[in-house]
Amino acid sequence: MKDLVSECPVENAMLVLGGRWRILLVYYLLEGTKRFSELRRDMPKISQRMLTLDLRALEEAGYVTRTIIPQVPVRVEYSLTEEGRRLKTLVEVLGECGDRLASRGYVKAA
Amino acid sequence: MKDLVSECPVENAMLVLGGRWRILLVYYLLEGTKRFSELRRDMPKISQRMLTLDLRALEEAGYVTRTIIPQVPVRVEYSLTEEGRRLKTLVEVLGECGDRLASRGYVKAA
Repeated sequence: MKDLVSECPVENAMLVLGGRWRILLVYYLLEGTKRFSELRRDMPKISQRMLTLDLRALEEAGYVTRTIIPQVPVRVEYSLTEEGRRLKTLVEVLGECGDRLASRGYVKAA
Repeated sequence: MKDLVSECPVENAMLVLGGRWRILLVYYLLEGTKRFSELRRDMPKISQRMLTLDLRALEEAGYVTRTIIPQVPVRVEYSLTEEGRRLKTLVEVLGECGDRLASRGYVKAA
């Protein structure tokens, strides 16, 4: 078990789910099980390295499972756990925030 | 107006609200108007520079207003706009995610 960083649940959630891509990954995995290459297609702007690291972090936090299908070439599939699927509300609320930002003409440059 | 980075509202929301401290800042500002020094006390781990940058980003996105009170020494107060107060649901949902992470014994090291 890792060290407790904060008593604040919001801070802890942001430590795990903050960052530019992680919740977006959850969003795409809510569509169903995906292979690494499919996630790359969903999110063309993320680097291969960041995608690997973010998937690993989500796996470590119990939100994502990684299944290796022994065939040639080996196939690796990612899907949400039950805990991961519970993040649907968060994804929806964030989507509403994004819609409101866009409707106010505010979109952040990268 | 900034360039549109993505058609995806979740991605746009995370570009503005992602990162370790911004939603936490909103959380503390939901308690009411605060001075810079009070926010520093609320979040002792954030650097003065990051706090300044994050407050500015939230101000730019229309979530926070900055009021300068002309006295000696000058007092600067931060409070949520109506749009900022609408983020309460997001803060609450994130808090629930953090509670669930903690209840599963998962807390992220910094």
